[in-house]
Amino acid sequence: MKALIMSEEGFEDSEVLAPYYRLLEAGLEVDVAAISKGPITGKHGYQVEANTTFKKVRPGDYSALIIPGGRAPERVRISKDALRTVKQFMKDDMLVASICHGPQVMISAGVLDGRKGTGWKGIQDDMKAAGVRVMDKEVVVDGNWISSRQPEDLPAFNREIMNAIGIVK
Amino acid sequence: MKALIMSEEGFEDSEVLAPYYRLLEAGLEVDVAAISKGPITGKHGYQVEANTTFKKVRPGDYSALIIPGGRAPERVRISKDALRTVKQFMKDDMLVASICHGPQVMISAGVLDGRKGTGWKGIQDDMKAAGVRVMDKEVVVDGNWISSRQPEDLPAFNREIMNAIGIVK
Repeated sequence: MKALIMSEEGFEDSEVLAPYYRLLEAGLEVDVAAISKGPITGKHGYQVEANTTFKKVRPGDYSALIIPGGRAPERVRISKDALRTVKQFMKDDMLVASICHGPQVMISAGVLDGRKGTGWKGIQDDMKAAGVRVMDKEVVVDGNWISSRQPEDLPAFNREIMNAIGIVK
Repeated sequence: MKALIMSEEGFEDSEVLAPYYRLLEAGLEVDVAAISKGPITGKHGYQVEANTTFKKVRPGDYSALIIPGGRAPERVRISKDALRTVKQFMKDDMLVASICHGPQVMISAGVLDGRKGTGWKGIQDDMKAAGVRVMDKEVVVDGNWISSRQPEDLPAFNREIMNAIGIVK
């Protein structure tokens, strides 16, 4: 079973590392995609190796897509290849988990109208404008979309990802 | 069920956050102890709130002790109260999990002679001098002591902590 993390320079370090390590702990294979292959660096200086690119990703290869926050989503959302992947996941009703600024990518992919979810308080107005019923909860599960607000929500975020993967298995 | 993390200023951020979030995800209550109550700051700038002190900790209240790395263990090991807690956990055969520089605290507590384990490569000579049979593995489980070398080992480290807690439950 394989999961995909889509991120870029300036990611919120704990929002990449905690789900990444959690998925590896559970025995999943995890690919990290960015604009180019190679190391990407978080706001706090952690480096993670992108082993694939937005262009090369084939959505059908994965059971789950994780979109962490930080400043990365503003870079990810301008990649048409990244948006193509998000649209495919949502169309196929596959698991998409976003945290913090992660929903910025989903807004640009045009996949949030009529959905329930949450995100970083500083982008909640943009989420509302995109048609989301925004809730102030540590985690919101709306069908295939799991969303959380911030790093402190990571225990609940990871718990719901693991629950959803358990169901998919 | 309750777990205790003992750390201080200069902790390796991911080595506190990943186990902390993992234990919370599993529904455990987690106390963080330091020399004084209040926020402690990691090498990468993350802050974690110490809600208790080495002096106030009663080892019998906890099922597991986690000792993360970074520069924190050199501060923790000079606290007699912290060493008292480590000694009690080891005497009672309760779960102790150390990663990276964490074993420095256990060396000062004098509890490692004759044990098998691992730690950051830069302190492996000190571990050997303290009587440890050091192994170059992502995680070593020696009875009640679980040990890992570095942040990249966190998936295996957390997996063994959860296995051990599952047995204790």
